[in-house]
Amino acid sequence: MGYKPYKGFEPKWVITPAASDSYRSIFRWGDPDFFKLPKESLYRMMKDRLGLSDDAFCSYAMDTGFARVDLHGQYPPHMADEHLDYFRSIYGHDMSQLDYDRLSVMYGQTCYDLLRLREHKYDSLPDVVLYPSSSDQIQKTVTYCAAHNIPLYVYGGGSSVTRGVEPVKGGVSLDMRRKFNKVLYFNEVDQTVTVQAGISGPEFEHHLNNAVKEYGAKRAYTCGHFPQSFEYSSVGGWVVTRGAGQNSTYYGCAADLVVQQKYATPRGEVLTSHYPREATGPNLNQIMMGSEGTFGVLTEVTMKVYRYMPENRKRYSFIFRNWHDAMSAAREIMQRECGFSSVFRLSDEEETNMMLRLYNVDDTPLQPMLEKLGYQDMQRCLLLGFTEGEKGYSKNVYKNIRKICHAYGAMSLTGYVCRSWEKGRFNDPYLRDTIMDFGVCVDTLECCVNWSNMEKVHREVRKICHERPNTIVTTHMSHCYPQGANLYFIFLTKVEDSADFKRFLNTILDAIQRSGAAISHHHGIGKMFAPWIEGSLGETEYGVFKVLKDYFDPNYTMNPGGTIGLDLSEEEKRKLRNGYHDGYNTKAWDDVIHYHGKDDFLE
Amino acid sequence: MGYKPYKGFEPKWVITPAASDSYRSIFRWGDPDFFKLPKESLYRMMKDRLGLSDDAFCSYAMDTGFARVDLHGQYPPHMADEHLDYFRSIYGHDMSQLDYDRLSVMYGQTCYDLLRLREHKYDSLPDVVLYPSSSDQIQKTVTYCAAHNIPLYVYGGGSSVTRGVEPVKGGVSLDMRRKFNKVLYFNEVDQTVTVQAGISGPEFEHHLNNAVKEYGAKRAYTCGHFPQSFEYSSVGGWVVTRGAGQNSTYYGCAADLVVQQKYATPRGEVLTSHYPREATGPNLNQIMMGSEGTFGVLTEVTMKVYRYMPENRKRYSFIFRNWHDAMSAAREIMQRECGFSSVFRLSDEEETNMMLRLYNVDDTPLQPMLEKLGYQDMQRCLLLGFTEGEKGYSKNVYKNIRKICHAYGAMSLTGYVCRSWEKGRFNDPYLRDTIMDFGVCVDTLECCVNWSNMEKVHREVRKICHERPNTIVTTHMSHCYPQGANLYFIFLTKVEDSADFKRFLNTILDAIQRSGAAISHHHGIGKMFAPWIEGSLGETEYGVFKVLKDYFDPNYTMNPGGTIGLDLSEEEKRKLRNGYHDGYNTKAWDDVIHYHGKDDFLE
Repeated sequence: MGYKPYKGFEPKWVITPAASDSYRSIFRWGDPDFFKLPKESLYRMMKDRLGLSDDAFCSYAMDTGFARVDLHGQYPPHMADEHLDYFRSIYGHDMSQLDYDRLSVMYGQTCYDLLRLREHKYDSLPDVVLYPSSSDQIQKTVTYCAAHNIPLYVYGGGSSVTRGVEPVKGGVSLDMRRKFNKVLYFNEVDQTVTVQAGISGPEFEHHLNNAVKEYGAKRAYTCGHFPQSFEYSSVGGWVVTRGAGQNSTYYGCAADLVVQQKYATPRGEVLTSHYPREATGPNLNQIMMGSEGTFGVLTEVTMKVYRYMPENRKRYSFIFRNWHDAMSAAREIMQRECGFSSVFRLSDEEETNMMLRLYNVDDTPLQPMLEKLGYQDMQRCLLLGFTEGEKGYSKNVYKNIRKICHAYGAMSLTGYVCRSWEKGRFNDPYLRDTIMDFGVCVDTLECCVNWSNMEKVHREVRKICHERPNTIVTTHMSHCYPQGANLYFIFLTKVEDSADFKRFLNTILDAIQRSGAAISHHHGIGKMFAPWIEGSLGETEYGVFKVLKDYFDPNYTMNPGGTIGLDLSEEEKRKLRNGYHDGYNTKAWDDVIHYHGKDDFLE
Repeated sequence: MGYKPYKGFEPKWVITPAASDSYRSIFRWGDPDFFKLPKESLYRMMKDRLGLSDDAFCSYAMDTGFARVDLHGQYPPHMADEHLDYFRSIYGHDMSQLDYDRLSVMYGQTCYDLLRLREHKYDSLPDVVLYPSSSDQIQKTVTYCAAHNIPLYVYGGGSSVTRGVEPVKGGVSLDMRRKFNKVLYFNEVDQTVTVQAGISGPEFEHHLNNAVKEYGAKRAYTCGHFPQSFEYSSVGGWVVTRGAGQNSTYYGCAADLVVQQKYATPRGEVLTSHYPREATGPNLNQIMMGSEGTFGVLTEVTMKVYRYMPENRKRYSFIFRNWHDAMSAAREIMQRECGFSSVFRLSDEEETNMMLRLYNVDDTPLQPMLEKLGYQDMQRCLLLGFTEGEKGYSKNVYKNIRKICHAYGAMSLTGYVCRSWEKGRFNDPYLRDTIMDFGVCVDTLECCVNWSNMEKVHREVRKICHERPNTIVTTHMSHCYPQGANLYFIFLTKVEDSADFKRFLNTILDAIQRSGAAISHHHGIGKMFAPWIEGSLGETEYGVFKVLKDYFDPNYTMNPGGTIGLDLSEEEKRKLRNGYHDGYNTKAWDDVIHYHGKDDFLE
């Protein structure tokens, strides 16, 4: 894959596929035969910025997880035989209490999860794993669990970075990947597709791309939803967490793509309506999305689909002199009313520095040229993306972007950088596993911000991150709107252990909230951000979640143990926050900004 | 205004301005000095289709309402002095118990309301009318009313067609028009504006159009929301009912335009968050919108605004050979991914017949030419609209529409018809008052439909309407999406009285629901459609509304008496439905359609 061996010292990166019964096969991302290694310039930068020498890469800092999974009978499942008998009557052989199967649905994909697995910390083993293949099985399971006070969890793609899937109270985990992944209806007239919630991103997209052959459709379609976790995420997970894909600026977030949802709840089946708009009271689709398994299990979902027209894609990349100019241009592009770019990703100065390495621009003659033209390292900012849609639409968006970028002093780097980014867009998580063997952790936190507060959030969150010595913090916006954008923070740092990591994460989360941003743009809340949510929304406002919970799941058996904060005591919340405050009343516009026509943001 | 006196018999249309203290000044639409009369060809068509002769227009069929409002002490307000004293302590002189003031907030604008006023039926007089000027006053009033079990209603623009504003249990009505209409913040960076909920459409738009002068902004803006009731509607009303403007295909419905809302509820102030997107649990903005005053009073709202660029507008109109071709083209336009038209209005055959008269095409040489070219009367369908946005965007949408229309056999009628429509777009309600003096009622019902069910809903609802003898039923879609559109039914018929009208309305509502459409696309539910909503959504699903109600307003003092069905017994619902069924389980896709690639809709 174009990987060049180092000229100097090179760490012994793990490039042996882990056996399918090993710990590593669980915590490692994706395809066991695929590896991604940092190239030499990136390795050097990492050492430099993290204050490490080659010594730190001479031996593994933590368990590489090649051993066979075996709990040695230390964590036996607790589940009464009568319950197991009942589940057997529904699932037959599609259930398991094996160590490996229980372990493989225990955690998601935040570094906190991966570190705990490497540390052999088994905080949240389910007692039994069920493999549903029908909505009916799931409804029966939900009803039974509610009646018998058995905690019920759902494992979709397993790419949660918020501890959303973690069965902290044991009980049942529904592993949706194996058998609950079919397309139920393809409706070309309405351009909608109904699927079982466990279908994976690639399976879903494959069916749509092949609609002509598979369904006798007139043309091919696309789902338009491509999160970085795409290859190992499930459609159900996108929906219940309100996820967003890297192409959301054009296609919308999951919440914009959903047409209809069916849930199995303790109160029975809940089916939302399927109209493009309606004025029939509070919107039930919008109530169920974001419930993250706490009201019930999403079983079936109807999604909008789009025409597959990759031939109309126009790729671009531009380099700006600084973050202020770049951000101003991004805002102008979003407010121009010229249509929206599909991928639209703007990196700040620190991320640009890394991106140019990661995407091989440092090997090209561009690098010295940029400096000469006044685009200085650690000041310059990279915008990349591509437009889509009907040919004229795509072209018009591109033309406007080009025009605005030039007006804000940017220089085109052509489509080359975008293509490099595309190559890596789904496989960067592999790089994370490679360096974590040496104790270097990469993780992310992301939030949503209005334009008028963007500079402040960017400045304050980075400042807090950099208070940890030897830390790289890169930031981009990748989901943009006329009223604001997300800010996505990626941090690299050497950590002691999972507890050290969690403390650092809490520090950043606190900074995000204090600076006036939404504590999640598209990762959801899960159990990890839960201690902050009531403070973030307000007490009366958050109370709405509680009455909805009481309605759907009065026995609190659905994803219990703190998901979106529903069953946490004040004491537990305080403890989980590590002493951080729970809210900063940042909702009132006049606290954040107070414009009466005066625009001190732009120019 | 280009009105030509008739050559034959002409009814004595009322063209005398009603005194400002008269009944007519209350039930009549808008400006007392503005009149709209049917031109002769329209009058002839009306007589013909309604089976009426000139005789029916020789004398007024109902009270024209020129008398001074006077209840002769027959309906005295009931309100304890201590309550009045309390309100006086907050409102000073900004309150009233005068007959006129009570009457003027009693009803909205459905024919059922206008007929009842002409019949001097005083079903729902409030006991006191309050004129708030601050959110603080409103919160105090809400808290007090909840504590003392006083029913509380809100009168915004008064253009409700669902009995949404009607104080059926007396008590307090907050009349928002007079003093609660200020712009609070103008934020050009985020392109948002925060207003008091009582501000009217034209006031709001005026501030935005004049932002350069008023706020020192860089450019002018527009709200993008123009319902037919625009001139006499309030921004708060748009939001709490989930309204939509005639330009919604481009700008979105009210629910898409809202950024943040503040409510005064019995549980205290509720402030939603203001981010462009967030993944922080169920969406509170979407829970409060559609609550129609039953959870609390919307006091302040932040709306997105758009750049005002009328110079980029491209007007068009096309005539199709039939409804099937026209609808297929509309769907193709919506699914093309070329951007969206601002106004996009497709009339069916019966509406086209009327539109060509109403917009003066019947006076032009076009009329005979159309017949010759195979566009037959009562088969041909008219599409009109205009595109907006950035110049290249607007042009590209227009080009695609033109191309698709031609591909479906349509002929361009140029921008002329669209301009004619624009002239009448806000003043057609005046015409309604003119003919109602003779007992001829015009009213509307509208719904939302997926493309795959469009032909059926159109056919079945029209069939039911036409079962009433001598009835004109025109239909259009005016809010379109890739997955479907609204269907908007306008019916003209001679009625006996308000009870007769209501029976007919229920018949149509029932047909809408039975055919598988959402019972409201943008008019809301109010008290009139309320008996149908639980059946439409499902029992478990509707239960969500009840728990939200119990949470926000445990004493049921907020817009009580059936609004969105919250405090109706089964017995009351049955009675209000006139014997109609309450639901038809039309939510499941597979009940309505079952496509596996087979597309028998298009071609």
